[in-house]
Amino acid sequence: MSPMKNFITLNDLASPIKTIQLAKSCKKDPFGHVHLGQRKTIGLLFFNPSLRTRLSTQKAAKNLGLDVMVMNFSNEAWAIEYENETIMSGLRSEHTKEAAQVVSQYCDFIAIRAFASLTDQKRDEEEVVLRKFAAFASVPIINMESATAHPLQALADGLTIEEQVTIKQPKIVLSWAPHPKALPHAVANSFIGLMNHTKADFVITHPEGYDLNHAIVGNHKVEYNQEKALEGADVVYVKNWCSYTDYGAILRTDNKWMMTREKMKQTNDAFFMHCLPIRRNVVASDGVLDHAKSLVIEQANNRTFAAQAVLQEFLTNG
Amino acid sequence: MSPMKNFITLNDLASPIKTIQLAKSCKKDPFGHVHLGQRKTIGLLFFNPSLRTRLSTQKAAKNLGLDVMVMNFSNEAWAIEYENETIMSGLRSEHTKEAAQVVSQYCDFIAIRAFASLTDQKRDEEEVVLRKFAAFASVPIINMESATAHPLQALADGLTIEEQVTIKQPKIVLSWAPHPKALPHAVANSFIGLMNHTKADFVITHPEGYDLNHAIVGNHKVEYNQEKALEGADVVYVKNWCSYTDYGAILRTDNKWMMTREKMKQTNDAFFMHCLPIRRNVVASDGVLDHAKSLVIEQANNRTFAAQAVLQEFLTNG
Amino acid sequence: MSPMKNFITLNDLASPIKTIQLAKSCKKDPFGHVHLGQRKTIGLLFFNPSLRTRLSTQKAAKNLGLDVMVMNFSNEAWAIEYENETIMSGLRSEHTKEAAQVVSQYCDFIAIRAFASLTDQKRDEEEVVLRKFAAFASVPIINMESATAHPLQALADGLTIEEQVTIKQPKIVLSWAPHPKALPHAVANSFIGLMNHTKADFVITHPEGYDLNHAIVGNHKVEYNQEKALEGADVVYVKNWCSYTDYGAILRTDNKWMMTREKMKQTNDAFFMHCLPIRRNVVASDGVLDHAKSLVIEQANNRTFAAQAVLQEFLTNG
Repeated sequence: MSPMKNFITLNDLASPIKTIQLAKSCKKDPFGHVHLGQRKTIGLLFFNPSLRTRLSTQKAAKNLGLDVMVMNFSNEAWAIEYENETIMSGLRSEHTKEAAQVVSQYCDFIAIRAFASLTDQKRDEEEVVLRKFAAFASVPIINMESATAHPLQALADGLTIEEQVTIKQPKIVLSWAPHPKALPHAVANSFIGLMNHTKADFVITHPEGYDLNHAIVGNHKVEYNQEKALEGADVVYVKNWCSYTDYGAILRTDNKWMMTREKMKQTNDAFFMHCLPIRRNVVASDGVLDHAKSLVIEQANNRTFAAQAVLQEFLTNG
Repeated sequence: MSPMKNFITLNDLASPIKTIQLAKSCKKDPFGHVHLGQRKTIGLLFFNPSLRTRLSTQKAAKNLGLDVMVMNFSNEAWAIEYENETIMSGLRSEHTKEAAQVVSQYCDFIAIRAFASLTDQKRDEEEVVLRKFAAFASVPIINMESATAHPLQALADGLTIEEQVTIKQPKIVLSWAPHPKALPHAVANSFIGLMNHTKADFVITHPEGYDLNHAIVGNHKVEYNQEKALEGADVVYVKNWCSYTDYGAILRTDNKWMMTREKMKQTNDAFFMHCLPIRRNVVASDGVLDHAKSLVIEQANNRTFAAQAVLQEFLTNG
Repeated sequence: MSPMKNFITLNDLASPIKTIQLAKSCKKDPFGHVHLGQRKTIGLLFFNPSLRTRLSTQKAAKNLGLDVMVMNFSNEAWAIEYENETIMSGLRSEHTKEAAQVVSQYCDFIAIRAFASLTDQKRDEEEVVLRKFAAFASVPIINMESATAHPLQALADGLTIEEQVTIKQPKIVLSWAPHPKALPHAVANSFIGLMNHTKADFVITHPEGYDLNHAIVGNHKVEYNQEKALEGADVVYVKNWCSYTDYGAILRTDNKWMMTREKMKQTNDAFFMHCLPIRRNVVASDGVLDHAKSLVIEQANNRTFAAQAVLQEFLTNG
């Protein structure tokens, strides 16, 4: 296999499982390869808010000796045009074609966060921001959560499962939860991507109308009855997303699908996972989050080593 | 005494006077302990604007070899919920419980600036932001100005007095001054805290209605006649604050309490101090600020070494 | 000649041509002087958006071993007052007199971006922000684009011409182009400044009403007929600016002056230059920008080495 050109989805990795193993070794010895990144620079371009990604990716880069330049692109730079052959007489003053080529000259890696619009499905599916940057950049593009994927989160989730779940073929449930705002499908999509590489009985559960992209769900089991889905679960990954078929819609906000201790008691003493930020007592109850089986803090910790593993792969094979 | 857990007020220090001596030695040899912070990271979280604190704390950290990650928390991350057992269905999408635990995993120190609301006195007094972060963080929390305290400023002020004032028991006056906006009590409070450890004849002067928190003022002399207070003063520390008893109110904006050269001439050729930023010809006249006895620029300079001393104490005893 | 105190225009350099040669050597060996900046710090203060300048100046500083502190001054710090002897009872809470002195204590260099207002011509001409900072700072002020000058861009342009144009005395045309927004004169001014030091047949072309500052244009040839100006050109530098005589006005937005391949064909197979960001199909057509003779990406690349050369001059002779 040829070296990885960009890291936009898990599919860009030669083997997500090997990358998770590498992340594990980064965690054991964070400064073991501090010379790999010397005199190299990563640019972190944020089009959206970020806490974990912002700090963990910086941390990962520093652990490898990289210099870091952080930009809040939307308000610190110029509004970017992504369309080809357009007359740029409106609000957008710089084309991605120039932006991507230019930043490539200052950075050895360009990491980008650009959320889904949730209004323009076609554009979101096409991953316009990351794909356009990738098309014109001369250095690797790294996904810090795009419209449809959050592979650094999936790798951190994979590392957390690898560390905590000792059962050989665990039952893992991805359960939808309510949320007052329309949220993207990126985390759910990439978690499913991780499951494609994980030996597990994997079940997706959500109310009707909340079906995810069929192309991503593939043959994974979908169960509309949450109670049934949770039976015997060893891991419960909870996440809200808005409707995919009625794109961007919030179909319900009642708390019937909120994760509670009562529901967790129906599982096989399951671990609880969530990517954070999480709205307490909306997505999951205090009792679930404060329970010893919650892995959310460790998932966040592993974000550093997920990013470090991906960067190390680039630095080693690039 | 056990090692300092957090640095939220001067009271967290074993001895503010010893910390000021340490700051003095940091100033003499800023890079003398550059290896202490190697492979460690400080996160600076700003909920409010900052110039001196932002730059001097970065500088202090770099002098000690620390990596620095700066975040403007309010607009770069998620709105934070501080209340317990609340249903997070409103605007706040991340609880401090997760935020503090998560950031602790990326940073060896978390420095926070979170000003007083000046509308909710109880909440301000409780120092909700810093105390909640401290409750959940697993690393030291450092106060970069909170609702009721600005101890890094007080240490810088202490160092400036130590360097400049040779009189054994100087008369030091903290004088209120007018300001068009409602300002917090944090600087005044921490300066009083410093005075608790300083051999001085200390007088607080302000118009009636501007009394500070009795619990902080303690037995210090309060004089409502500014002229009388300034008589024979060796140091005049000027600062505006809004009403504490009529919490957040601006009771007067006339310029009778503005510091002028005429007033300074009634002192014992006193030094002039202020924490900056200062509104010229509102809080103090150009003549006062541009006079040789003004210490405001040196106070700002000493912010670096105040922060460096606090960090060094943590790095040495932590 | 005495060492350079500040870098506000090209005139502050002993020899712009020698600085361009130094930039060329920085490009050959970017880390050749990485020890020069050790334990020194540059502060980048942005009052306006920036992509190239923000990243290339950071990169240049890092190449020289400098620590970098970046601030978006307008929203991260306090609103700055520049007038003397004013009563600061309005929106501005910090005077440049204090700000400049204070930041000088944390930084060995202060680089500032502060665009033209395009409403107050006198104030813009006086370069109030940079000049006031320079008046009160105790360290060098570096111009990252001010109201009337963008000398780092001119140096990058000079390096690009030096590298690409082999003709001994090329014909270089600075051609105005349309733009939907009122843009400053800084880039055009500094490019003219570069031409004062360049052996070239230099022609400025623009519609009537768009004459630049006579004091800057000097004796350079001005041609109101774009077609005539482009005849035999070896380099075409395109840039919009608003009216200078009718200060800030947009006199026309039609596309007659847009640069096209048809026009470029009338030249001597000229190189195309622009400082970026550029609005495609408004300022220049896709065909011009995507043509092999376009130098815009290399100009942006050379921004790093222009900044590095200026910093190196300060570090060597300072």
